[in-house]
Amino acid sequence: MPSILLTPGPLTTSAATRRAMDRDWGSRDKDFIALTARVRERLRRIAGADERYEAVPLQGSGTFAVEAAIQTLVPRGGRLLVLANGAYGRRMVEIAKRLGRDVAALECGEDEIVSPERAVQRVATDPAITDVTVVHCETTSGILNPVEAIAEALRPYGKRLHVDAMSSFGALPLATARLGLASVMASSNKCLEGVPGIAFVVAETRFLEAAEGNASSLSLDLAAQWRGFERDGQWRFTPPTQVLAALDAALDAHEAEGGTAGRGARYRRNCRALVAGMRALGFRPLLPDNLQAPIIVTFAMPSHPAFRFAEFYDRLRARGFVIYPGKLMRAESFRIGCIGAIDEGDIGGAVEAVAAVLGEMGVPAGQLAG
Amino acid sequence: MPSILLTPGPLTTSAATRRAMDRDWGSRDKDFIALTARVRERLRRIAGADERYEAVPLQGSGTFAVEAAIQTLVPRGGRLLVLANGAYGRRMVEIAKRLGRDVAALECGEDEIVSPERAVQRVATDPAITDVTVVHCETTSGILNPVEAIAEALRPYGKRLHVDAMSSFGALPLATARLGLASVMASSNKCLEGVPGIAFVVAETRFLEAAEGNASSLSLDLAAQWRGFERDGQWRFTPPTQVLAALDAALDAHEAEGGTAGRGARYRRNCRALVAGMRALGFRPLLPDNLQAPIIVTFAMPSHPAFRFAEFYDRLRARGFVIYPGKLMRAESFRIGCIGAIDEGDIGGAVEAVAAVLGEMGVPAGQLAG
Repeated sequence: MPSILLTPGPLTTSAATRRAMDRDWGSRDKDFIALTARVRERLRRIAGADERYEAVPLQGSGTFAVEAAIQTLVPRGGRLLVLANGAYGRRMVEIAKRLGRDVAALECGEDEIVSPERAVQRVATDPAITDVTVVHCETTSGILNPVEAIAEALRPYGKRLHVDAMSSFGALPLATARLGLASVMASSNKCLEGVPGIAFVVAETRFLEAAEGNASSLSLDLAAQWRGFERDGQWRFTPPTQVLAALDAALDAHEAEGGTAGRGARYRRNCRALVAGMRALGFRPLLPDNLQAPIIVTFAMPSHPAFRFAEFYDRLRARGFVIYPGKLMRAESFRIGCIGAIDEGDIGGAVEAVAAVLGEMGVPAGQLAG
Repeated sequence: MPSILLTPGPLTTSAATRRAMDRDWGSRDKDFIALTARVRERLRRIAGADERYEAVPLQGSGTFAVEAAIQTLVPRGGRLLVLANGAYGRRMVEIAKRLGRDVAALECGEDEIVSPERAVQRVATDPAITDVTVVHCETTSGILNPVEAIAEALRPYGKRLHVDAMSSFGALPLATARLGLASVMASSNKCLEGVPGIAFVVAETRFLEAAEGNASSLSLDLAAQWRGFERDGQWRFTPPTQVLAALDAALDAHEAEGGTAGRGARYRRNCRALVAGMRALGFRPLLPDNLQAPIIVTFAMPSHPAFRFAEFYDRLRARGFVIYPGKLMRAESFRIGCIGAIDEGDIGGAVEAVAAVLGEMGVPAGQLAG
């Protein structure tokens, strides 16, 4: 039996999505040009963007798209403020520093949301800031940042706001056009349930137009990538053809499930089942329920002397459930994802496996604190 | 019937290679770590490298790996000489310029090889040069550059030589260690017959070690990517898991075919059949046979008034053969590839289709010059 992946991605995909990879495509042929156009249009729609925006797919992982957005959309003479409450926010700071861009960070606790009030305070007192970024769902902890409130609060200041929606895109609504976001970044292999290999940025066209020459990387120049699509519908450089075909099939399933609302509802059921089941065994989520996004859940590491995480991971894996093998939060913790082509039944099976593994390890349920 | 791709890649792949994509992988799980290690070792071996080298795979297209090698392995204070006789050489100049690196080009004609003598002359008179790059098979024309002679000729000058082996790797031998190459770049979806989405650089370890801080891009920092593999066997950022699995399956086929020698022999048979068949119809290859690599063949554009290339392309496509839809050479020309999971029988079918299409278009074979 194939494993079920309970990670922040790559995830469990559907057989139909994987089956879409069973053909070859000429990457400059009409069929592939049509496929590219269709996927771009669907991504724009899911972003809640309108005709003022363009979806620009890019080869690589989500980080490639984040870096492409930063180096293309933040002007060379601009100043970027990163609102950070986890590893992915901190990574944006590192990206900007490497590029030699002027960057500042507003650091928040990993178990606290990014506060709109603090963001406003910072922007109001640092007029050199031109661009602000924030992560929608910080998978470091699984926390949901209040992007809508942040966008509304910052609106009077006229800054460009870029949202890393990597692990929320397609499951949690984001009203890109209504909020006036400058760009939204995400990837094929999270809540869209495609396979990994493509990331994308949905960006306001006027900022792409104004971005010529900003990027110091040819490969990660989002404006040149967009101009390539505009010119002849083709990718500038060889695209992962099968990965795009899988994404298109995955978008079919997304639509059939009722789009973002339907996808989000299933993930919320998964998340509730996971948290309830794990709590019943004595595990403690690190976040209060009202801050928890239905994407991935961080649990406090049990302190019982017989609980060794590496063994826990291996035993769960032997039972067909692959969780994230490490931690990203500073706190001692581990994470279990609830996204992918899985449902409450799969989550129930995972919780049963956790219970059985605790028994094998000699850790009595309800006494995880040792 | 699925189309046969006669392009420089993505190519026709085997059913076994595509079938390898029909599972999900936890990208930080042991199975995937083992898969990554196995592929890296196989790539190093095919490169003709030894334990002084490391294969570093990277998400994205071949251009991403070329850019990663240039920004990581060429020191910030170095000077790069690009030996260019086509679009891919010129692209390396553009990459280096964008990065703000000191770069010079030795431009050769598109239908001439890069001359080892001219390379030596240039290097001897420009002592600031630290690094030299050349393309092994320039798919712009299909020409085979004499990388071995260039490496031998430049050896006394002690420069780092980097070879873009994108469209030759795995089909034309390259004795990386014996020639003392600093790095070799290639991708999954050319002569290795994998699907697109992964590129790689086989680099001398001491240059990776010395490269810390050279790259201005986090995503394309080859040294950091390598250190990630060294640390825990994992990719720093989400890898295209299915694409790597397909590459591993494609490497099985490569081995079963007798490695680079066997693969190259089949491509030479394909190329001979293509050139002979097309010549018999009156087409003229732009390169003399002794400069032609068995990868892709450029033909002069027929001048007969009834020969319209767009129609030629569409009619061939309708018969199941997808060729490259444009041109890269400055000369009026078109290209037909002879690589991928195809054999002489497929090439024979393509030549028959070309003959039939000429008939449909009212272009008498043997009178293409009009």
